[in-house]
Amino acid sequence: MPHSLPADSVGLVTPQIAHFDTPLQLDCGRQLAAYDLVYETYGTLNRDHSNAILICHALSGDHHAAGYHSPEDRKPGWWESAIGPGKPIDSERFFIVCLNNLGGCKGSTGPNTPNPTSGKPWGPDFPIVTVRDWVESQARLADRLGITQWAAVIGGSLGGMQVLQWAIDFPARLRHAVVIAAAPNLTAQNIAFNEVVRQALRSDPDFHDGHYYEHQVVPSRGLKIARMLGHITYLSDDAMRAKFGRELREGKINFGFDVEFQVESYLRYQGESFVERFDANTYLLMTKALDYFDPASAYSGDLSAALAGVEASFFVASFTSDWRFAPQRSREIVKALLDGDKTVSYAEIEANHGHDAFLIPIPHYMAVFGSYMRRIAAELPQ
Amino acid sequence: MPHSLPADSVGLVTPQIAHFDTPLQLDCGRQLAAYDLVYETYGTLNRDHSNAILICHALSGDHHAAGYHSPEDRKPGWWESAIGPGKPIDSERFFIVCLNNLGGCKGSTGPNTPNPTSGKPWGPDFPIVTVRDWVESQARLADRLGITQWAAVIGGSLGGMQVLQWAIDFPARLRHAVVIAAAPNLTAQNIAFNEVVRQALRSDPDFHDGHYYEHQVVPSRGLKIARMLGHITYLSDDAMRAKFGRELREGKINFGFDVEFQVESYLRYQGESFVERFDANTYLLMTKALDYFDPASAYSGDLSAALAGVEASFFVASFTSDWRFAPQRSREIVKALLDGDKTVSYAEIEANHGHDAFLIPIPHYMAVFGSYMRRIAAELPQ
Repeated sequence: MPHSLPADSVGLVTPQIAHFDTPLQLDCGRQLAAYDLVYETYGTLNRDHSNAILICHALSGDHHAAGYHSPEDRKPGWWESAIGPGKPIDSERFFIVCLNNLGGCKGSTGPNTPNPTSGKPWGPDFPIVTVRDWVESQARLADRLGITQWAAVIGGSLGGMQVLQWAIDFPARLRHAVVIAAAPNLTAQNIAFNEVVRQALRSDPDFHDGHYYEHQVVPSRGLKIARMLGHITYLSDDAMRAKFGRELREGKINFGFDVEFQVESYLRYQGESFVERFDANTYLLMTKALDYFDPASAYSGDLSAALAGVEASFFVASFTSDWRFAPQRSREIVKALLDGDKTVSYAEIEANHGHDAFLIPIPHYMAVFGSYMRRIAAELPQ
Repeated sequence: MPHSLPADSVGLVTPQIAHFDTPLQLDCGRQLAAYDLVYETYGTLNRDHSNAILICHALSGDHHAAGYHSPEDRKPGWWESAIGPGKPIDSERFFIVCLNNLGGCKGSTGPNTPNPTSGKPWGPDFPIVTVRDWVESQARLADRLGITQWAAVIGGSLGGMQVLQWAIDFPARLRHAVVIAAAPNLTAQNIAFNEVVRQALRSDPDFHDGHYYEHQVVPSRGLKIARMLGHITYLSDDAMRAKFGRELREGKINFGFDVEFQVESYLRYQGESFVERFDANTYLLMTKALDYFDPASAYSGDLSAALAGVEASFFVASFTSDWRFAPQRSREIVKALLDGDKTVSYAEIEANHGHDAFLIPIPHYMAVFGSYMRRIAAELPQ
């Protein structure tokens, strides 16, 4: 029997597909002749198209940011905590758009979709896309939807990097930039973790140089390791201590390699369920987009110079226990904006949830985020 | 042509083997009927056998702590920085013993040595040994060498855990306990990293449930991933930034999966060279010994109670940027000792090298460590 959906949810949503056949020139030098983008929308676009919000997803995210796909669906979209009636990204005020990025694995053109030249999945032949490529493709989706200027572009983590790129590449096309738990580029340690993930995926014998689709297998060992490792970096040391400590599943050690500590059980479960829902080639592309992102590099490392042309007002938020993209990295963004006399609000949220905090409805976080979003709503025509 | 060995080295050393045929009762409930321990010694045992020092090794260490195995040998032992004439662990004052722990892979009885019941390598049938088992076997080696009381037992990381266990299990058999970059137990995050390593090793198709010796293969993919991940946790974020930053090997990105960033090159090299020198079953055992170590657990988590019977004087050292075993973990040990009115000196060394710092001759570290060791030497009969 279908359960009733929560009142503060956008409710039932249906993904849509936009097809593009104007070739897209990519940073890597290659072109995509044509491509699809899958997206969802929540709320209603107002008369002058001024209330549109773009949500950019992170590494393992997709277009399904909020709501449910069917009445039986028990799991809402990935940012249900922040999107919906009365929530910070209020679907009663805004028209919210979220898409699966190019290279994704949930319907948009990517490694697991057919390569028109062969009819077989793109696999490893899909070009390595960059944050800039994504933003370009997102701008075309905006054109398609009749949105010349977003009220805000919003994203956490890798999503926040897309927001920065939007503000740089299309300064006039967004009024507000909301950058949460992000960084102006990856540190050596961040890249190192990505490289371990890549080695785990690519060395799995079931990877078949990325052509696993044709072998009817998936590199499940590599995906599992990648996800387990990811979860360690998403959680803080403190969060793991609070959540698992040294608790033993059976209350005693067994001198074997089955699950003994609760944290092992959690990680194995997370790893195994990821295998069923994500694609290894997409994961590889995402890690590369992360590694490459570095808007300051074209300005000899001067982030302020990279941001010199931005016109959006910024809201930047970080979380004290996030060691993947630590508050210090957000402060680099804030400082670069302030050095360039840009408008920026910054919130450093006390939270022990680590990087994951950006997805969690922590009251103080929801309050400051909601307050900023109400300011944006207040600027809209009544 | 042989190069001349450095003057501050113990010089040429030859590993020795001690065979034991008194059964060793293990924590897991099983017995080892007989076993070998490979060890090295540096310096000379004095007349009353009061100047003996035991060095306990960490996860990937072995008995070769200092000196060279041949004049052609270009790489000294793993703690050459601290052991030798005039160094903190001064081979002109002390008789220094270092052994390969049971379950190791460098000659002591372990997974890669023959199981007497089958004649084939023990492999996964080798019992999971604990820090307590190691200490018991080390005490027997002390008996064999005629050492009733160590001047000091010294170790870093997992080695430091053995030092703690020595002080608890054989309070009268050591005068000083030197515990460097260690912790009274692993955190959930520490265990989580170990679990990722175990999954990487055990899911490698060449692991063959631990029986890879018989297949003439090694789980090289798993070992490589394990070591790469290890290196990330040994280095601090700052150290990686200073050492590699976002430097590109060819000065540009290539939109491919070959090495692009210098940090990738470093990790791949570390991973690959580890495959040739370490054993996967031993690595698995070491991670379990780490996970299980928790002397306070028998006292409802009260570390001070666990340490109530210790008689040794302690020197505890930690490093500011060590996030694997952070200074806070060392302070837990210090606090527990002080709460029990034990004698303890504590040094928190400013160093950006991460956990690896304990192997690096950082001047301030060498100075305080050397100073403590000279105090021990001063207590010896002239």
